[in-house]
Amino acid sequence: MRTIHIPTSHEYDVLIGEGLLDKSGELTRKAVKPCRCMLVSDDTVDELYGDRAQISFTYSGFEVDRFAFPAGEASKNLDTLRDLLNAMGEARLSRSDLVVALGGGVTGDMAGFAAAIYARGVRFVQVPTTLLAAVDSSVGGKTAVDMPFGKNMVGAFHQPSLVITDTDVLRELPKEQLSNGAAEAIKCGVLEDPALFALLERGDWQERIDEVVARCVAYKRDVVAGDEFDTGSRAFLNLGHTFGHAIEVCSSLQILHGQAVGIGTLMAAAAADCPEAMLRRLADCLKTNGLPTRCRFGAEELARAALNDKKRAGGEITLVLPEAIGKCRLERIPVSRLPACFEKALNALEALDL
Amino acid sequence: MRTIHIPTSHEYDVLIGEGLLDKSGELTRKAVKPCRCMLVSDDTVDELYGDRAQISFTYSGFEVDRFAFPAGEASKNLDTLRDLLNAMGEARLSRSDLVVALGGGVTGDMAGFAAAIYARGVRFVQVPTTLLAAVDSSVGGKTAVDMPFGKNMVGAFHQPSLVITDTDVLRELPKEQLSNGAAEAIKCGVLEDPALFALLERGDWQERIDEVVARCVAYKRDVVAGDEFDTGSRAFLNLGHTFGHAIEVCSSLQILHGQAVGIGTLMAAAAADCPEAMLRRLADCLKTNGLPTRCRFGAEELARAALNDKKRAGGEITLVLPEAIGKCRLERIPVSRLPACFEKALNALEALDL
Repeated sequence: MRTIHIPTSHEYDVLIGEGLLDKSGELTRKAVKPCRCMLVSDDTVDELYGDRAQISFTYSGFEVDRFAFPAGEASKNLDTLRDLLNAMGEARLSRSDLVVALGGGVTGDMAGFAAAIYARGVRFVQVPTTLLAAVDSSVGGKTAVDMPFGKNMVGAFHQPSLVITDTDVLRELPKEQLSNGAAEAIKCGVLEDPALFALLERGDWQERIDEVVARCVAYKRDVVAGDEFDTGSRAFLNLGHTFGHAIEVCSSLQILHGQAVGIGTLMAAAAADCPEAMLRRLADCLKTNGLPTRCRFGAEELARAALNDKKRAGGEITLVLPEAIGKCRLERIPVSRLPACFEKALNALEALDL
Repeated sequence: MRTIHIPTSHEYDVLIGEGLLDKSGELTRKAVKPCRCMLVSDDTVDELYGDRAQISFTYSGFEVDRFAFPAGEASKNLDTLRDLLNAMGEARLSRSDLVVALGGGVTGDMAGFAAAIYARGVRFVQVPTTLLAAVDSSVGGKTAVDMPFGKNMVGAFHQPSLVITDTDVLRELPKEQLSNGAAEAIKCGVLEDPALFALLERGDWQERIDEVVARCVAYKRDVVAGDEFDTGSRAFLNLGHTFGHAIEVCSSLQILHGQAVGIGTLMAAAAADCPEAMLRRLADCLKTNGLPTRCRFGAEELARAALNDKKRAGGEITLVLPEAIGKCRLERIPVSRLPACFEKALNALEALDL
């Protein structure tokens, strides 16, 4: 088992290894005194892993209630949040009790937000069951729900008390879900870790999935520790996300987050005038990992969707622009330049037939 | 104008004085660079003071949108919160923009909570228009909405960037609203400030309302600075609130918060075996300030309502028990003892015909 310590205002460990789901209660017990806990999953994950988690937590002395909601990003809204909060109230959770998020990014974001605001904050533990959640959303304390006017527009910074990633669970994921997570790992590679990128572009990294997760978490640890509340350098983690969020919104959430981030990262590289060889290498890496490289939306449509992005502040937007594999820069541009930026990226990729 | 500095993790000033409403934009401008702002009020306050606040903020360079909701504690729920968040989204507020809470405790709690979670946190300014909000809820950063399973059960700690209390506005309040606020001031007196209590029991303090507000805020500053996140000594501020919340819940929020806290403080003193002279003095002070001393609910009914109180943790509850005017102690009791505690208090007050 690998342990990575996250030194944010509220410190915690990320545990990565085989067979951890069946030890999740026992591992949690070392960080949180047994108490009442609400185990939150979507209905798919609840059916697959809910019982095993509940048995482990119960065996370790926790009193477990369960809450399951319909799987999918469309559930990440105020209605589901209200149902979850009411379930916590009915289970009589107190300020010293616990929420356990067993699932992917939607579950972690929403259960984490419920934990952030129930009784003005209770503790929570992340047990990511998707590669995407394991490498990205389960670490760093960003929680949120989507609103009609934008993704993740209502939320809180609330660090978990522990993150438990069972690599056996990740290996059981359908191929599409592994691709979805690979996109965020590729993002980390482009941002700062050429060795990780090289591992991912070979396409046979599934045997070394613990290393992929650990490298991504270690990178995220460094970024989050330096800018917990996202007022500066944490913006690097948004590589591919301004473009990607726009693609997700335009697709009415039919395109998966990872797929959108993959395309978004490629578009950012194109917008940044990266050389053709690098664009081709990046596109090949995405394809090798089962990710698309093209989106069917036009520049104007994408720019309109991106304008609702919360990272826009005072008429400007911060873009993350790749310079090489393992090196990116931040650039603030006026919001008014965004459509031209999308246009440039789409044209460059079109010209290279990527 | 009096200025009281609040040294919490996010520091800010409380300004108290005459004619401040018409200078609210100008005063805010010294703490927050002009930006887009959402001015939040209930419909009563919006009609009375909304235009004056908007003119001042607009004149000082802020771009002002307004949101008004139906007056009353019943509005402090997730539905109104959702409407407010959507209005903020439609007004395209970004992370660097501002929420202004113009009103009483309901407005401050809800607008503050919206500010805490919109885009994971925007700044907000409190402009309390009730004595209750001025002496208590506008300072300290507790924000929340009510849930079916309990008052204030969903919320956040989010400190304002500035608090502006116009004492001219407070002087225009109907008598019932002044009484409602006086109860929290009496609470501060019982907790630590015998001189404040003496001022309040004379009943002619309206001329010195700025002193009453300043003394309460100064007391709250000391408590909040020592325990911002309510894990210890901040519990003192709950004097009268365990009993009071139960009364509010039993009355389906028909009894005003201050009235309930007044009765609750008297009940706490009775439960703490305070001498008859002190109980009579406290009851007289409540009556002088137009506050009731009796509730019509039984011990069992009250205890059932109190059990949903979030301050209950792990089967125990912390009571604040007066020992003298200006001195209280904390006592943790098992939740199971709560009905007996209510019973004792009600019997003692009944015996003295208070």
